[in-house]
Amino acid sequence: MPTVAFLGLGAIGAPMARHLAAQPLGLRVWNRTSSRAAAFAAAHGAVHAMTPADAARGADVVITCFPVSGDVESLLDGPDGLLAGLGAGSVLVDCTSGDPATSTRIAARLAAQQVGFLDCPVSGGVVGAEAGTLTIMVGGDAALLERVRPVLEVFGKKIVHCGAIGAGDAVKAVNNALLALHLWSTAEGLVTLRRAGVAPAVALDVINTSSGRSNASMNLFPERVLTRAFPRTFRLALLDKDVGIAAQVAREQRVPAPLLQLTAEFFTAARSALGEEADHVEVVRFIEQLAGTEISA
Amino acid sequence: MPTVAFLGLGAIGAPMARHLAAQPLGLRVWNRTSSRAAAFAAAHGAVHAMTPADAARGADVVITCFPVSGDVESLLDGPDGLLAGLGAGSVLVDCTSGDPATSTRIAARLAAQQVGFLDCPVSGGVVGAEAGTLTIMVGGDAALLERVRPVLEVFGKKIVHCGAIGAGDAVKAVNNALLALHLWSTAEGLVTLRRAGVAPAVALDVINTSSGRSNASMNLFPERVLTRAFPRTFRLALLDKDVGIAAQVAREQRVPAPLLQLTAEFFTAARSALGEEADHVEVVRFIEQLAGTEISA
Amino acid sequence: MPTVAFLGLGAIGAPMARHLAAQPLGLRVWNRTSSRAAAFAAAHGAVHAMTPADAARGADVVITCFPVSGDVESLLDGPDGLLAGLGAGSVLVDCTSGDPATSTRIAARLAAQQVGFLDCPVSGGVVGAEAGTLTIMVGGDAALLERVRPVLEVFGKKIVHCGAIGAGDAVKAVNNALLALHLWSTAEGLVTLRRAGVAPAVALDVINTSSGRSNASMNLFPERVLTRAFPRTFRLALLDKDVGIAAQVAREQRVPAPLLQLTAEFFTAARSALGEEADHVEVVRFIEQLAGTEISA
Amino acid sequence: MPTVAFLGLGAIGAPMARHLAAQPLGLRVWNRTSSRAAAFAAAHGAVHAMTPADAARGADVVITCFPVSGDVESLLDGPDGLLAGLGAGSVLVDCTSGDPATSTRIAARLAAQQVGFLDCPVSGGVVGAEAGTLTIMVGGDAALLERVRPVLEVFGKKIVHCGAIGAGDAVKAVNNALLALHLWSTAEGLVTLRRAGVAPAVALDVINTSSGRSNASMNLFPERVLTRAFPRTFRLALLDKDVGIAAQVAREQRVPAPLLQLTAEFFTAARSALGEEADHVEVVRFIEQLAGTEISA
Repeated sequence: MPTVAFLGLGAIGAPMARHLAAQPLGLRVWNRTSSRAAAFAAAHGAVHAMTPADAARGADVVITCFPVSGDVESLLDGPDGLLAGLGAGSVLVDCTSGDPATSTRIAARLAAQQVGFLDCPVSGGVVGAEAGTLTIMVGGDAALLERVRPVLEVFGKKIVHCGAIGAGDAVKAVNNALLALHLWSTAEGLVTLRRAGVAPAVALDVINTSSGRSNASMNLFPERVLTRAFPRTFRLALLDKDVGIAAQVAREQRVPAPLLQLTAEFFTAARSALGEEADHVEVVRFIEQLAGTEISA
Repeated sequence: MPTVAFLGLGAIGAPMARHLAAQPLGLRVWNRTSSRAAAFAAAHGAVHAMTPADAARGADVVITCFPVSGDVESLLDGPDGLLAGLGAGSVLVDCTSGDPATSTRIAARLAAQQVGFLDCPVSGGVVGAEAGTLTIMVGGDAALLERVRPVLEVFGKKIVHCGAIGAGDAVKAVNNALLALHLWSTAEGLVTLRRAGVAPAVALDVINTSSGRSNASMNLFPERVLTRAFPRTFRLALLDKDVGIAAQVAREQRVPAPLLQLTAEFFTAARSALGEEADHVEVVRFIEQLAGTEISA
Repeated sequence: MPTVAFLGLGAIGAPMARHLAAQPLGLRVWNRTSSRAAAFAAAHGAVHAMTPADAARGADVVITCFPVSGDVESLLDGPDGLLAGLGAGSVLVDCTSGDPATSTRIAARLAAQQVGFLDCPVSGGVVGAEAGTLTIMVGGDAALLERVRPVLEVFGKKIVHCGAIGAGDAVKAVNNALLALHLWSTAEGLVTLRRAGVAPAVALDVINTSSGRSNASMNLFPERVLTRAFPRTFRLALLDKDVGIAAQVAREQRVPAPLLQLTAEFFTAARSALGEEADHVEVVRFIEQLAGTEISA
Repeated sequence: MPTVAFLGLGAIGAPMARHLAAQPLGLRVWNRTSSRAAAFAAAHGAVHAMTPADAARGADVVITCFPVSGDVESLLDGPDGLLAGLGAGSVLVDCTSGDPATSTRIAARLAAQQVGFLDCPVSGGVVGAEAGTLTIMVGGDAALLERVRPVLEVFGKKIVHCGAIGAGDAVKAVNNALLALHLWSTAEGLVTLRRAGVAPAVALDVINTSSGRSNASMNLFPERVLTRAFPRTFRLALLDKDVGIAAQVAREQRVPAPLLQLTAEFFTAARSALGEEADHVEVVRFIEQLAGTEISA
């Protein structure tokens, strides 16, 4: 079995790393807030690396999981940086929901010292990370994916090779942009109907057995909006970032995508109005405010 | 059992009427193209009425099923019109995917001669109509709905009282507008990904197990777009009409609904480009043309 | 000279009526708030009519000037209504910034009793009304316009026959929609530049000698936004109404007009956020809030 | 007087260079298509430089004028590149309608060898370039601007210091984006009115004395659209590029700018439909096609 290092023990990263720690992979962990890495190492029998370089040294596979690609890029340089530790022939597997442009830059720098790179964003949320059933979208060389597949299978159930470097990032961003779009469109529809005298629960009852249904209407609205629960599971700020990445890819590819571009604008406005800690489903509150009508049961 | 008349033996109306003809309801049928009504009457043991008035005369429940509300409104007047035949205490059940404003006008004219009105658009398509398992969205008086419920149950499986007159129309229009929006948004996403090097089938494989999935991505794209089959099951012109109704309701209710309004614009442009006979899923072709890229397997 | 009646002594209407009162037209005036009409009659030597019917009785030309077409329509009926006073052969000249659909309905009711109708919205604001230099956009029969032209020339400088009934309304609404669009677009541009480090006054200095200039950039931004004066000269609520009329005309004509439709949405949202008394230029404040940046000198 | 070099003898660059050649500036010129530079040098008494390095060698001020910033960036490197010729203390004045990100990168590379940089896009078109009355939008160090001002004054009439490096690019891009927006919005309005029965010339007559007027409505529509002349003076492809730069700046600055972003999409679609050689005003043809109605006199 290969030796593995894991950097970024956040809400998604920590449960992923826990699955890895349960395997004979000589797991080394690093985290920006050092105490989290120390606690993790103590609890799960991993080695607490003091620096990214230290974590990467001797590892066959280094996995990163951060909010944005820029976080990974910023760990590359310096005497403590990843590039100082990564050995020729090793692979960086970046599970960040990143952007293709930054992934491409990172990959080029790694390639210069014979280190491989795969962008591997995941979907499934905290629940999927804890169950080890994540979907993994892979961009990069197919042969490299085969080499690291046994490691990915420790925490992922569905592993999809999407294309060249950046393709994993692009698929993840577009999926999340569709989530954002469907959240917004369903809120527009339900606010309109409520103002026309139709109870949101009645409208959803019909829509969810009809052609207008989506993951947003079937799961998020009944469980989180009608109940006014709005649990904080995935930050609006991060979804805004994802929509922005999808919008950027469309622009670079010169694809007219007006609904996508407009959704990027609206999420930016909603994020600015609702703050950095709001949950992604709370974007519905922004639409409710503009309309002066609430989508409640 | 009540006596029933049915007007409008189109692709959805004919199978609905067939279920009614199999019950002891003394069914009378009328159709603009008279030969269709004659053939239906002969085949299913119904009475072929020569005029709308003739169909309505003596009927407890008159059911109409046409492309737009204006079709129903145009049948009201004149010596052969519905108003000349409908008796006090009878009910007009309009299964057209109509618009609330016209439904409200029709209901007011019927009320003036003690005739009830329910807007009852249906969803489920030709398949649901043939199986007798349609979803029926009802707008109007709840007690009136209870009176006609046994008739609706002959062809409907899920009957939902949505609110006052026009509420059924509104729910149907919003559902279809969400379908339209998700068709368009998913096409934007898949074209973008294809240009970024990701095969549409791979992208859909990921999206359909992730948060961006919708009825459009799970059913329409795999079955109709990737295959390039584009079967003609529901005309783009009719979906454009439905999106327009939803947009109109939002405007009247003063609800800012930018994605919905923009989708109304784009469907109008697509209808004009693709023609009156195009299927609703062919809107994808319009997006493909704008981008110069096809979403094929 | 013909006998003239004037209904609606608001901010625009009163100075228009003042010019008419200075001519030998036997002017009769009516206003919803009766005291305004009484004061006007006393000050300018006109007759204070007690009801719309009373004002219209014996008049050759009846001029109305209200916030919306619905106001005029609501004055038609009843024993005190306009229809009770208007004589065959007289003409209703509606200077309201109205909507074509309502104007068409009003015209049909008047035609039934041999009364002519022209929709004649005006532009030029309070300043133009006081100077008697308004531009008048006329919809309706050209011969009828020639008959009332001497009356219109009392307060208007440029009189343009735009087309059939409703055409005057349509031109006025589209002009105002362009104003709304240019206000919004210029605000987007100036906020963007300010955030990129360019002072709004510097940006306007360039734009106003370049191809991006508009009435909004040349007059409204320098005088009202950079100074933060935001004088209340024309209510945002009324401009929102005008944009809505233009958007409605585009929909009825099946013209894809995405920028116009979107602007209608944004003005509705801005009006809801800023209130009924806000000036139209204050829409800029809404954009500033969404962006978190002010366009000040 | 300083010694000057000029690179990029296109439609705008050539007349600018002609004004410089008439001054005692020891002008050296370079052009990608060498024959143009040879002909220019012969006709105007300038020196024909064989390479960018050769042009820059010994020059105090090097002026570049190309379609996009990337063109300038691509001239920097190699033995024949600008960096090989530019001396410490010299200044690169880039009159390209560029993008701030690339300008910033170019400036950083020049700074490393003590060469100054100013982004100086111009407006005024071919006519302004020939008359020597261009407006120049300057980004970069104010003291540096003072040093080169005498050179800029040879071809520019209005010289505006907009801010730091990239600010000139940003102002130019936003100005052009407003032009694009006003072209599109006015076309939407005129197509709508024409379908409602109002002749475009009549509508423009009103709008151009009213609040909805803009440079587009006052100059471009009467001279180029109503006449169907559509002269080719400025390519749609270049305006699309400018709108894209403005949209990119708004995104980077996190300013919600929905009309701007949407206009970027529509121009991309129009460019793809109309081709690389279409004039910017021909975007009106695209809107006419979508609506099925022409804006002609």
